Amino acid sequence: MKNILKDLIDEKISIEEAEKLLKADHIENVGELAKLDVFRKTRTGVPEVIYAQSKTPQMVLEIVTSFLKSKKFSIISRYNEEQKEKIVETFQNNNFDLIINDLGKIIVIKDKSFDFEKQNGIVGIITAGMSDIPVAEEAKEILKAMGCEVITSYDIGIAGIHRIFSPLSDMVKKGVHVVIVCAGMEGTLPGVVASLVDVPVIGVPISSGYGLGANGKGALITMLQSCSPGLMVVNIDNGFGAGASAALIANKMAK
Amino acid sequence: MKNILKDLIDEKISIEEAEKLLKADHIENVGELAKLDVFRKTRTGVPEVIYAQSKTPQMVLEIVTSFLKSKKFSIISRYNEEQKEKIVETFQNNNFDLIINDLGKIIVIKDKSFDFEKQNGIVGIITAGMSDIPVAEEAKEILKAMGCEVITSYDIGIAGIHRIFSPLSDMVKKGVHVVIVCAGMEGTLPGVVASLVDVPVIGVPISSGYGLGANGKGALITMLQSCSPGLMVVNIDNGFGAGASAALIANKMAK
Amino acid sequence: MKNILKDLIDEKISIEEAEKLLKADHIENVGELAKLDVFRKTRTGVPEVIYAQSKTPQMVLEIVTSFLKSKKFSIISRYNEEQKEKIVETFQNNNFDLIINDLGKIIVIKDKSFDFEKQNGIVGIITAGMSDIPVAEEAKEILKAMGCEVITSYDIGIAGIHRIFSPLSDMVKKGVHVVIVCAGMEGTLPGVVASLVDVPVIGVPISSGYGLGANGKGALITMLQSCSPGLMVVNIDNGFGAGASAALIANKMAK
Amino acid sequence: MKNILKDLIDEKISIEEAEKLLKADHIENVGELAKLDVFRKTRTGVPEVIYAQSKTPQMVLEIVTSFLKSKKFSIISRYNEEQKEKIVETFQNNNFDLIINDLGKIIVIKDKSFDFEKQNGIVGIITAGMSDIPVAEEAKEILKAMGCEVITSYDIGIAGIHRIFSPLSDMVKKGVHVVIVCAGMEGTLPGVVASLVDVPVIGVPISSGYGLGANGKGALITMLQSCSPGLMVVNIDNGFGAGASAALIANKMAK
Amino acid sequence: MKNILKDLIDEKISIEEAEKLLKADHIENVGELAKLDVFRKTRTGVPEVIYAQSKTPQMVLEIVTSFLKSKKFSIISRYNEEQKEKIVETFQNNNFDLIINDLGKIIVIKDKSFDFEKQNGIVGIITAGMSDIPVAEEAKEILKAMGCEVITSYDIGIAGIHRIFSPLSDMVKKGVHVVIVCAGMEGTLPGVVASLVDVPVIGVPISSGYGLGANGKGALITMLQSCSPGLMVVNIDNGFGAGASAALIANKMAK
Amino acid sequence: MKNILKDLIDEKISIEEAEKLLKADHIENVGELAKLDVFRKTRTGVPEVIYAQSKTPQMVLEIVTSFLKSKKFSIISRYNEEQKEKIVETFQNNNFDLIINDLGKIIVIKDKSFDFEKQNGIVGIITAGMSDIPVAEEAKEILKAMGCEVITSYDIGIAGIHRIFSPLSDMVKKGVHVVIVCAGMEGTLPGVVASLVDVPVIGVPISSGYGLGANGKGALITMLQSCSPGLMVVNIDNGFGAGASAALIANKMAK
Amino acid sequence: MKNILKDLIDEKISIEEAEKLLKADHIENVGELAKLDVFRKTRTGVPEVIYAQSKTPQMVLEIVTSFLKSKKFSIISRYNEEQKEKIVETFQNNNFDLIINDLGKIIVIKDKSFDFEKQNGIVGIITAGMSDIPVAEEAKEILKAMGCEVITSYDIGIAGIHRIFSPLSDMVKKGVHVVIVCAGMEGTLPGVVASLVDVPVIGVPISSGYGLGANGKGALITMLQSCSPGLMVVNIDNGFGAGASAALIANKMAK
Amino acid sequence: MKNILKDLIDEKISIEEAEKLLKADHIENVGELAKLDVFRKTRTGVPEVIYAQSKTPQMVLEIVTSFLKSKKFSIISRYNEEQKEKIVETFQNNNFDLIINDLGKIIVIKDKSFDFEKQNGIVGIITAGMSDIPVAEEAKEILKAMGCEVITSYDIGIAGIHRIFSPLSDMVKKGVHVVIVCAGMEGTLPGVVASLVDVPVIGVPISSGYGLGANGKGALITMLQSCSPGLMVVNIDNGFGAGASAALIANKMAK
Repeated sequence: MKNILKDLIDEKISIEEAEKLLKADHIENVGELAKLDVFRKTRTGVPEVIYAQSKTPQMVLEIVTSFLKSKKFSIISRYNEEQKEKIVETFQNNNFDLIINDLGKIIVIKDKSFDFEKQNGIVGIITAGMSDIPVAEEAKEILKAMGCEVITSYDIGIAGIHRIFSPLSDMVKKGVHVVIVCAGMEGTLPGVVASLVDVPVIGVPISSGYGLGANGKGALITMLQSCSPGLMVVNIDNGFGAGASAALIANKMAK
Repeated sequence: MKNILKDLIDEKISIEEAEKLLKADHIENVGELAKLDVFRKTRTGVPEVIYAQSKTPQMVLEIVTSFLKSKKFSIISRYNEEQKEKIVETFQNNNFDLIINDLGKIIVIKDKSFDFEKQNGIVGIITAGMSDIPVAEEAKEILKAMGCEVITSYDIGIAGIHRIFSPLSDMVKKGVHVVIVCAGMEGTLPGVVASLVDVPVIGVPISSGYGLGANGKGALITMLQSCSPGLMVVNIDNGFGAGASAALIANKMAK
Repeated sequence: MKNILKDLIDEKISIEEAEKLLKADHIENVGELAKLDVFRKTRTGVPEVIYAQSKTPQMVLEIVTSFLKSKKFSIISRYNEEQKEKIVETFQNNNFDLIINDLGKIIVIKDKSFDFEKQNGIVGIITAGMSDIPVAEEAKEILKAMGCEVITSYDIGIAGIHRIFSPLSDMVKKGVHVVIVCAGMEGTLPGVVASLVDVPVIGVPISSGYGLGANGKGALITMLQSCSPGLMVVNIDNGFGAGASAALIANKMAK
Repeated sequence: MKNILKDLIDEKISIEEAEKLLKADHIENVGELAKLDVFRKTRTGVPEVIYAQSKTPQMVLEIVTSFLKSKKFSIISRYNEEQKEKIVETFQNNNFDLIINDLGKIIVIKDKSFDFEKQNGIVGIITAGMSDIPVAEEAKEILKAMGCEVITSYDIGIAGIHRIFSPLSDMVKKGVHVVIVCAGMEGTLPGVVASLVDVPVIGVPISSGYGLGANGKGALITMLQSCSPGLMVVNIDNGFGAGASAALIANKMAK
Repeated sequence: MKNILKDLIDEKISIEEAEKLLKADHIENVGELAKLDVFRKTRTGVPEVIYAQSKTPQMVLEIVTSFLKSKKFSIISRYNEEQKEKIVETFQNNNFDLIINDLGKIIVIKDKSFDFEKQNGIVGIITAGMSDIPVAEEAKEILKAMGCEVITSYDIGIAGIHRIFSPLSDMVKKGVHVVIVCAGMEGTLPGVVASLVDVPVIGVPISSGYGLGANGKGALITMLQSCSPGLMVVNIDNGFGAGASAALIANKMAK
Repeated sequence: MKNILKDLIDEKISIEEAEKLLKADHIENVGELAKLDVFRKTRTGVPEVIYAQSKTPQMVLEIVTSFLKSKKFSIISRYNEEQKEKIVETFQNNNFDLIINDLGKIIVIKDKSFDFEKQNGIVGIITAGMSDIPVAEEAKEILKAMGCEVITSYDIGIAGIHRIFSPLSDMVKKGVHVVIVCAGMEGTLPGVVASLVDVPVIGVPISSGYGLGANGKGALITMLQSCSPGLMVVNIDNGFGAGASAALIANKMAK
Repeated sequence: MKNILKDLIDEKISIEEAEKLLKADHIENVGELAKLDVFRKTRTGVPEVIYAQSKTPQMVLEIVTSFLKSKKFSIISRYNEEQKEKIVETFQNNNFDLIINDLGKIIVIKDKSFDFEKQNGIVGIITAGMSDIPVAEEAKEILKAMGCEVITSYDIGIAGIHRIFSPLSDMVKKGVHVVIVCAGMEGTLPGVVASLVDVPVIGVPISSGYGLGANGKGALITMLQSCSPGLMVVNIDNGFGAGASAALIANKMAK
Repeated sequence: MKNILKDLIDEKISIEEAEKLLKADHIENVGELAKLDVFRKTRTGVPEVIYAQSKTPQMVLEIVTSFLKSKKFSIISRYNEEQKEKIVETFQNNNFDLIINDLGKIIVIKDKSFDFEKQNGIVGIITAGMSDIPVAEEAKEILKAMGCEVITSYDIGIAGIHRIFSPLSDMVKKGVHVVIVCAGMEGTLPGVVASLVDVPVIGVPISSGYGLGANGKGALITMLQSCSPGLMVVNIDNGFGAGASAALIANKMAK
């Protein structure tokens, strides 16, 4: 800023030019801090995830490569078959570990020498039906990358609330800090779980359901209307957001 | 129809005139049947209810009077104070019994000599909160006018699902044929009840709730999305409809 | 619970450990009852249905097999061609009866030695148009599995309310206990039927219709707004729910 | 336009000035035609109506006075008590006829020497319930101001489709050219009427109804989804629009 | 009805049986009138149209054949290629005339000996863009089948309101009785036309448009909100309904 | 259960009676556990709050009194003036402490001998505008009743995101465990805060805003769409839910 | 930042403490820039406006007073009578000029010595109906405070698009840089104006209109769907936003 | 008009015929002006764009050819592969320059002898994510055809607000007159940019996002609710509209 003012005094630049440069200078300063912010954020352990949807395989590859240079690992979500093949072809070798989660549509690529640091947070994930599993798996991989222990309990085909009690009891015994509950349709499961446990519960509405309230809207509304204290919500199908929030909470509790 | 055609042939009327009269004749015939239908309906025991909202007190009075002539009783719903005063002033005498339900905003006026015929149907009504009670009371009065025994269980001020179990158990012991469950907010109670009993359950969404899903829309969606077989739904705050349907079912089961 | 407290007194476990175990114990107790509830529900005759949508053929096969071990029959709904082929290939043999309902997308597999117990309930199903038939067939198969006699009347191609009167009259003569009416578009048929008969009517909105009110929303709203007492509603396209509720009512009336 | 170009050539104005004037000239020309259009429109018989809502009594008075100068009559709709008093006070004298329709919230002020010209169109207006009457009355006054004969049939308090047949038959006998049907709630009446008569039917959804589809939205959707040919729709509560369209059609048919 | 009562008196049937038969009798009577109604309706000239969507080719063929037996013509709308081939294969011979409108997805099959009776109604159809044409063509074919003369003016590719004036002027010269205006996007064209002509205008919202108000909802709202008297509306893409209503009006005006 | 079976064997009751009693027994068992659950929940520190809206002053008084007997404190939310007067009149004496929060519409009544147990959780509350303060105060009182330290920063009248930085910095210095951010209008503040801190953030949409997205819907959508990890949401205006969840998290972190 | 690190090295603070302080430091830095931004913004000429709605008169007074100290003027919008009286009482004296715009609900208080600097931008404001005027007046006052010349053309009571042409022509002659068009109902006027002029047009939907598309939603959708290039939109009733944007554009064009 | 009246006087035509001709004459006059308007509009530099969606390749070709005759260039948007091939095949020769923008789905065909006239307006385009780029490119091509200089800054794969500061600073240094900001999801970027720069900002909501607020609706609402003065909005994905408005503003500012 000083330089600009000096140039102005020395009549090297006009007032209009100086005004323009001062405005640009202001924006750059904000930008510098914004960049710092990003680095700090990364340091706290929420990894950036490459959302592959609507990118070409080549584009995904380039971003992954650039990530691996600075961070020793890279996470890709919502990939398609073509993108997956390109990645497998490139990184399936002695230098990298590839974790391919086909259900959750997440790939984790890690330098052989690297491992996610354990943080001691313990998070439970419960699903109510088959269609909830991909979103649950997305949450699981984020949680693992943030150093949490994850205990999952997925329904494997038939509706029935009674199936959740035994694994929920196990979760409590193991000392979970947070429980993520994925549910579509009428979305009542997160409220039920929140009334049974005394740890925070994160509800993830799933884009199932039909007729009035279809595509997860019914589940979202039920969770928002629920009277159970301790229940918080993220957007429909937002497994990444639920996982990141749960990890933040669980790891701090574990300290 | 014959007369019209005869007049046509006798050239008493023109073809255009005949056509016009035949059309009118057709409509009148349909109307005759429609009228018959109304009488039959009344006979089966669903009473016509005078919806007082947006009528002047005088207008309500006239309709009530005309009803009392042909039927020995009259039911008024959603009345206001002014309408109520007019009715009390007119009918509080030796000829009539007045049942004034201020919570449900229903007045029943009966000839002293008249009583609703007992039908043996037993219906339970459960509410989840304070704001559900007016609608529940509306249902109750219809049920009683249709000859049913009614067992009610209303929450008296504090949220808590545990309060419904004991009265629900009582209802089962007494042999309820149908259970009506009124619920606003997230509207999960009807689904819970439907999973505990093996009689049909009628869910009535109540226009409470706030934010996303306010005014009963959240409750309606939850009930429609619910997986519990045996659960059916009527429109938001439709106590009259729920009561009439429950009575139809319960009285037939009781036979 | 006693054991945990004893261990605590004997100092075998810490207070924290005891608290954790007591919480888990509580959840397990609720779970036990929830499980009992499921068995009771099954006993009352509402069969669990395997919703095949978004499952792999292998997964469907495994669930079907596990069902057949404990129950002698299995019902699969909303299947696709690949799932169907897998099932036909596996179960089309001397041990099983296969009922494949391609319109309703329902398959019933039964042990040759097994038959659904007759319950004497009689249910009528009426559809207003071609696109209503799959949902009607879904309801029909559930009704049959719950022991009901089913009388159907499907429109076979041309709009026209006059086509329903003759079969409706037949249904009444045969003594139907409940009528299910499937309707899309403006969805007025259930209200018309409810005004003509004195048995309960279950309206099923169908996801047809176009423009404002498309995908069954118009039909659902009309049914909810309808003034006809005796009309109850389930969610759009919910043939299973309508069938299960109708069977519950009809079988109890038939007793 | 010529003058502008001439001034430009004579260098009385600059090119920029000429451009600006040419643009303004264009807009004025369009405006001239637009004004002509308005006079022509008035001549065809659709009167301009002064929508009083959100105007001060003084403002309404001024507009009315200016109308009366050029047209010998003036129509005010949706007035409040204060506006009405002002008008009555001013125009209740030997020079004017005042027609005050308190139900429809319409006032017609006419020079004693003036009468609306008879046009021979005959229009029927049918309402399904009490809350439909104000809108029906609004339509009626417009129709009368456009020279039509109007036959009304208003329900006076109790639901029941059978009440419309007899007056509908009368309307047909009298040779109605168009029928306007006002209906709230599930809004099925216009479709029923359209299936019984062979003249065009204009459906007016009324802002009654409750729960899902409240405020006339359910009625509007039902009318739009209706399969009955011959049924057209205007916006919720738009009595003025329905009346004006009906008069246009009826008067041309009557010629 | 008499017979039933006689049988009851003669004790050939029980009271219960009689009650059941009387109810069925009532429904059959209503049905008889409903059937008569259908025949009358057909006679007034609104032809029944076979909506081919979601029917098998064989099913379409059967309905068409049954229609041709009683009526000498048959109209199929919204057909697909497979259905079209089946129809062409069957009816392209010396006995029938085939009119295949590929834009409007309408096929008219007529007995060589048959022609639609001329009714003298004249209807104009105006479209604002390319995507409006299929719906306009649907309206056109119905109008022709109902004996109207049709004058169309379709935009052939570029937006621009100025293109409608010249053909609209032609329509007025030729004496159109009604104008149908199809418009998507912001849907203002019907209001503009209604302000320029003094005949009724039927607006057909078209399911184009994007973002907020997409799929014709924006166009529908604009037409309903429009202040132009003389404008009435049908549902989005409802070319059939617009055509049938326009023909009813135009043919009566032409008389 | 044993007794029922014994009575059955001893033929004291019929099979039907036994079945009915077993069903009732089952429901009572579930109810027992549900009751236990309620006591456990209270023990964990989420106090039950008496939602005063739509209750009579007398009714509120009775519930409060019954609470004070068993718990030594009572919290009333969303009260009106009449209810407040009744409470002040009754409890403003030597036995009780009254904390009346007129902004948040919350009253806390405590036995003089009683104090909420300190739990060491620290929670920050930030608001973006004036209309957010009542909801923020509701959250604050719950937090205090659950033993948390609360740091608030409320905007006092003028929009401007710059005002939040200094208090946010203070909150971080003091070691907040969770930040609650209340925001209406476009609702971006919670996302901004979540990108600046590394503790969990709970967004509370406030029912302000106008036009498209009014009544907090825009704010809710923005928060759900936000990409910031660590951000969770409760329903519009749900100060109680946000406070209870924040306390659960903060107190566990503080341990 | 340096100091914190130094203290850490000197072991005056722990690592945990240092981390906490660094985070706080970062937030403060962002805050500093944010504050600078606010000052810069004010300098560019968009004045901060005190939104009086939901503030007490005393609160409004305090904010106004604090503004007047640093800026020599203050603008209050959406005030009520009580707030207005308080302001008049306080500032109606020799030191200040008070401009009270009762239609637009805006008060401008200026030091006698102060005047808004003229910027030469010229902006036209056109309204379609009575209910658009308050919003137009709000825009006008902002424009004047930002130094623009404003030319208004308000409809004074009767619908009719022809009334806008003459003043629009005047605006063009006077060289307007931007035109703001306020419109409710079907909201077509902004599109019409945008097709007549070659300067940018800002459409402001007004919260009038009824039925489907009520409260300005129809007008907003029409403006967004409009094909006219040069038309941009702000939220419903957002006169302030439209005025500020128009001034920014007009003043830059005038330079 | 005179001729018609003369013919009437000379009794060459009847009164009815004259009336009809006068009406037609009026419409033609309006049409003439409308045509003039179109030519004027084109002259101001907003080019007409051929929206290829839902047109056959042959149809597109014909329109393009007709445009090239009168204007020396032609712009096609939203083309598909088949349309593109047809165009390339026809116009890739010595007479024309072809600019094919596959990202933005825009083709510009220019006579070799023709170039868009430079207008000196400078416009910046900023996108927040990958899916915003096609719409941004659409805006860019329109801007270039209207003679503007365009500076773009597209995110190339990873979320992060910090990436926009540096290019935004560059834009300010280069003196942009307007900034277009495309954003989906929660859509906050346009508000952020508007708070950093003092030139007008046009927000373009992009049809990305998921769950509640999907398909750009969340982004649109956020932009409309934003408090930042200087921010205006166009419809979701409307790159063409944003580009045309920006060019109008920028070119006038540059003068």
